[in-house]
Amino acid sequence: MKPNQTVEDEPQQSVTTMKRRIQMLSLHLTPLSPLQPSPQLNMLTCAKASKLEVDNVSLSSYMRGKNREIQEKIFEFFNSRPDLQTPIEISMNEHRELCIRQLMGLVGEAKIKPFRYVVEDPAMYFAISEAVGSVDISFGIKFGVQYSLWGGSVLNLGTKKHRDKYFDGIDNLDYLGCFAMTELHHGSNVQGLQTVATFDPITDEFIIDTPNDGAIKWWIGNAAVHGKFATVFAKLILPTHDSKGVSDMGVHAFIVPIRDLKTHQTLPGIEIHDCGHKIGLNGVDNGALRFRSVRIPRDNLLNRFGDVSRDGKYTSSLPTINKRFAATLGELVGGRVGLANSSVGVLKISVTIAVRYSLLRQQFGPPRQPEVSILDYQSQQHKLMPMLASTYAFHFTTQFLVEKYSEMKKTHDEQLVGDVHSLSAGLKSYVTSYTAKSLSTCREACGGHGYAAVNRFGTLRNDHDIFQTFEGDNTVLLQQVAGDLLKQYKDKFQGGTLSVTWNYLRESMNTYLSQPNPVTARWESADHLRDPKFQLDAFRYRTSRLLQSVAARLRKHSKTLGSFGAWNRCLNHLLTLAESHIESVILAKFIEAVQNCPDASSQAALKLVCDLYALDRIWKDIGTYCNVDYVAPNKAKAIHKLTEYLCFQVRNIAGELIDAFDLPPYVTRAPIAMQSEAYAQYTQLAGFQ
Amino acid sequence: MKPNQTVEDEPQQSVTTMKRRIQMLSLHLTPLSPLQPSPQLNMLTCAKASKLEVDNVSLSSYMRGKNREIQEKIFEFFNSRPDLQTPIEISMNEHRELCIRQLMGLVGEAKIKPFRYVVEDPAMYFAISEAVGSVDISFGIKFGVQYSLWGGSVLNLGTKKHRDKYFDGIDNLDYLGCFAMTELHHGSNVQGLQTVATFDPITDEFIIDTPNDGAIKWWIGNAAVHGKFATVFAKLILPTHDSKGVSDMGVHAFIVPIRDLKTHQTLPGIEIHDCGHKIGLNGVDNGALRFRSVRIPRDNLLNRFGDVSRDGKYTSSLPTINKRFAATLGELVGGRVGLANSSVGVLKISVTIAVRYSLLRQQFGPPRQPEVSILDYQSQQHKLMPMLASTYAFHFTTQFLVEKYSEMKKTHDEQLVGDVHSLSAGLKSYVTSYTAKSLSTCREACGGHGYAAVNRFGTLRNDHDIFQTFEGDNTVLLQQVAGDLLKQYKDKFQGGTLSVTWNYLRESMNTYLSQPNPVTARWESADHLRDPKFQLDAFRYRTSRLLQSVAARLRKHSKTLGSFGAWNRCLNHLLTLAESHIESVILAKFIEAVQNCPDASSQAALKLVCDLYALDRIWKDIGTYCNVDYVAPNKAKAIHKLTEYLCFQVRNIAGELIDAFDLPPYVTRAPIAMQSEAYAQYTQLAGFQ
Repeated sequence: MKPNQTVEDEPQQSVTTMKRRIQMLSLHLTPLSPLQPSPQLNMLTCAKASKLEVDNVSLSSYMRGKNREIQEKIFEFFNSRPDLQTPIEISMNEHRELCIRQLMGLVGEAKIKPFRYVVEDPAMYFAISEAVGSVDISFGIKFGVQYSLWGGSVLNLGTKKHRDKYFDGIDNLDYLGCFAMTELHHGSNVQGLQTVATFDPITDEFIIDTPNDGAIKWWIGNAAVHGKFATVFAKLILPTHDSKGVSDMGVHAFIVPIRDLKTHQTLPGIEIHDCGHKIGLNGVDNGALRFRSVRIPRDNLLNRFGDVSRDGKYTSSLPTINKRFAATLGELVGGRVGLANSSVGVLKISVTIAVRYSLLRQQFGPPRQPEVSILDYQSQQHKLMPMLASTYAFHFTTQFLVEKYSEMKKTHDEQLVGDVHSLSAGLKSYVTSYTAKSLSTCREACGGHGYAAVNRFGTLRNDHDIFQTFEGDNTVLLQQVAGDLLKQYKDKFQGGTLSVTWNYLRESMNTYLSQPNPVTARWESADHLRDPKFQLDAFRYRTSRLLQSVAARLRKHSKTLGSFGAWNRCLNHLLTLAESHIESVILAKFIEAVQNCPDASSQAALKLVCDLYALDRIWKDIGTYCNVDYVAPNKAKAIHKLTEYLCFQVRNIAGELIDAFDLPPYVTRAPIAMQSEAYAQYTQLAGFQ
Repeated sequence: MKPNQTVEDEPQQSVTTMKRRIQMLSLHLTPLSPLQPSPQLNMLTCAKASKLEVDNVSLSSYMRGKNREIQEKIFEFFNSRPDLQTPIEISMNEHRELCIRQLMGLVGEAKIKPFRYVVEDPAMYFAISEAVGSVDISFGIKFGVQYSLWGGSVLNLGTKKHRDKYFDGIDNLDYLGCFAMTELHHGSNVQGLQTVATFDPITDEFIIDTPNDGAIKWWIGNAAVHGKFATVFAKLILPTHDSKGVSDMGVHAFIVPIRDLKTHQTLPGIEIHDCGHKIGLNGVDNGALRFRSVRIPRDNLLNRFGDVSRDGKYTSSLPTINKRFAATLGELVGGRVGLANSSVGVLKISVTIAVRYSLLRQQFGPPRQPEVSILDYQSQQHKLMPMLASTYAFHFTTQFLVEKYSEMKKTHDEQLVGDVHSLSAGLKSYVTSYTAKSLSTCREACGGHGYAAVNRFGTLRNDHDIFQTFEGDNTVLLQQVAGDLLKQYKDKFQGGTLSVTWNYLRESMNTYLSQPNPVTARWESADHLRDPKFQLDAFRYRTSRLLQSVAARLRKHSKTLGSFGAWNRCLNHLLTLAESHIESVILAKFIEAVQNCPDASSQAALKLVCDLYALDRIWKDIGTYCNVDYVAPNKAKAIHKLTEYLCFQVRNIAGELIDAFDLPPYVTRAPIAMQSEAYAQYTQLAGFQ
């Protein structure tokens, strides 16, 4: 598409204050109608900056996932049940009870049974999970603990006997359960876990033990109050006949009953304590578990990747501890896919609140003229428009990830497993960090009214915050991405093939090995800057350059510092590499989504947003591009100007763009009107202008 | 000081695991002893990177303000009164009642009477305020509403008659009061306030009215529950004898009783509603006020800058509405000084928690060796060490601001008034934004344990968040700084004098008008990069360049867009200019503080920290410096390497640096040990290793 297709020449219609007032009143009855920028700000527009026409319905239907129906069913159910909606102020204990009632309501009353989708149709499962999280993030996590973590570990790490025994109980919530991996002293370093499961050949049981305080299972969701079972990760210890007497077979997963199914009493040898009040997610009952010689039948070993026979012999289809460990953890990537997906959902809510408010709120203006909408200020556009563009970019990329994950679950294709593992680690990390920062930016952009609890930024931020840490700390996950890139790089130079998703590295690596082209470094026309090829090349050039340079640095430092020391010496560099790679993937997926959009008007809108995403990111790193002469100073200036222009253009269709997220009134009820009893009582409008 | 003075050649002592264990146990009894980096990480140090010896006592006494005694008295009082300490979970209503009891305890039992210090000794007042805020930020704000906002408006905007009538009641808390400026539709735009105060010459009264819903006073602290009075900002309307009948004299402040002194009943014509639950600060009872023909005596006009006589004639020592408005608002800068000061206090707490935890927490390590402290990871150093350096930088700069403000309150020197106004706006904005971001970074850097409510990041972030908005939205305040710089710039070119604090602009403007020096642009020795002259020149060069270029752009755009439109077109540029200027001031004050430090060992430590502050900031903007050839590529590389080296060096004395903040155990009780009942019960150590 040519860039000038996004620009039309009709002049802005001037709207009177009266008309705007009526428009604003109508907001409370209908979705946000496309507000036009304050007429007096028209003077700020460039000559060509008239407004793109956006076909709301078509854009919205392109954005909508194929599992929208079940999401709507969920929203309708909770909309009809005020007793299951989370109030603004709620104590920890009440919130925990509410969350379990929400879960029971979803399964028992709305008749949504998500468990079978965990393996059979992950896209459906994630759609349900996202909707549930939009109702209350605590509820979303409680839901995920039950079905994805506890349930998922049974399905993915166990075998048929486990599925037969536990499926129905997990599905109908009779068997509420936990995922007991993290210990007090070991979170990220899962291989360092110290809980032990020793096989007793006499009784044909495993004995689960917590050897020291640091090995207490910590932060275990569902443990403090509701859980009946836990999947416990522990080192499998087998008796041997040599002088050592025992052999450590590495970390395995075991089903351990923790409370009596009938009386709910804690079982003998199990000690449970409450991890207490958290910054957010107080609807989830995190607890700590200590085991004192807890005996479980041999059958409770989740034995898909390794088994123990009646006489204590170990068998596995995988040859080494490291391979078995990788296979076990590999089955858990679904959690990360779900978090990335839900985090984009949170970002959509947050951006919607902030953009709506900024369209409605007016403050200051030219002398003797009405005040202007705060979204007409360059600073506000700068805060919110690239964020809106990123939300679109993340939306399409997580959709892609969900598809790939679903495919992987069906085909078990080895290359796909590697790709999904790395992409889910990278996207989870990148998106959750971005959303966390954006929630703060949005609150601040909405000023005092953003600070009212009713407007949700506080709860969203507090609940979402830990998305950066659980299911893999973001800083640790990015290192996995970097490690994987280095492995691909090494393979390439040893003649191996690059994996499907990332084969751009091969191409751009060749580009990089030559010097930047001094001619294109000077091209500065809008046509060129908005050419997807230029944008993608720039992103990938940066990644390739970072990859090649860090590989060289690692080689150099390894000689003196060893591999651990060299890795640490290059750590910031490695993290930047990983982020740069994720950004390349995001842009590529966004460009594809623009190209595949069937409706011309929606495509034009998406193209505008995609260009803003790409150029804003390039501008953020313009120093690097200039330093290596990839971008000449005149071109840098042109990029900056075009980015500002695109911000302004996107602002003009911002109302339509947030509408296309199609968030139900249930989710954004407060933000639409910034309403509360007091607001309503005072303002009658229940809103601001 | 020469840079190599910070480096000594003694090798690291190797400490055994046993020793470290004992050290860690000792933490719970004594302040943090200087933990050395993990021995196995010594291999990461540069040849010269041995540890600086820091004299804790001397550094701490240099940091300590002169009003430390009263702060210690406050900490001791609350430490001895568990019933006045804020629990981790508390409902909004209970929190509001606790805050008023804390305030009563402070004044009635601990016998701290802060009111006289508001005008007489602001440094003392801010010291009390900071200590009170360390106990509970809600309490700090409740305190500030009573003494600085409500009390301060009476003292600063009123005259002797007001002081005589209200002083004792405000001081002893009989007259709890509010500061009713913000309206539902007008926050930042104070001149747009719509509440009116019409003089009635027949009864010699003012009639206070809320003309429309948007003019309801909103977010008014102390209004929802406790306040008896409010200082209400309203347009003063006087009857005239011309055809218009009335004349709008602009915004003035009036004392309006809102509740009966004895019965606490809301007075006739006053309507009060609750603004409800907020993201944080729920110990403060924000309310909304509507006035329906509320009559107050003429004496209730706070008449320092403008008065009305018995017959309705207006008199003022100031000639125009704008000058009176400026004088009125000018008296309110104390609030900003206090917020900047308290925000640094919050940053100290947050950095202390995060650094202590990162020293204690270990995860991963080289093969077959003990795990390493997470502060030994480059990524963790990168997150926390520049933040620690910034905390020191902000500490000295806010100390300077408090001194200047105190001086201004004594001398009323006009130049000083301008300086303090601009510096308080800039520092409040810069510091509170920085602290808000840092609180999120600290939580994330502490992983799951950072998410436990007991470890305070959540409460600190939620409570501090609004510091970015109240007493002037940060984005608006930065524009005031930019506006002031432009005025200075214009004055310079019209032959005026530049004000005292900022006369560096004159000098660096001259530097800027010539081209960057191609020789110094290539200098890359550590001596040069750690020379305060190089650092300060680089900061000031950047500011001057931004100032000159934005002035030119404004001139250009004004012709086509008018001044409002041109300002908006350059808004991001203006905000960058303001931030750059504030950074220049901060660095200058930090360098002075290093130079004035009497103890050589403390000075060496501070020099290290100051260099990290300066070079990290230069590195963040290296693209700009390179683009204009102020820094050549080889020098950029040297700056990056040195910054990483300084991070590592500062990490080595990080324990001592946080100890020097001298935060009392009362304030950091949880973080020292990351303790809670559950932790303690399980770990006995009540901590992590």
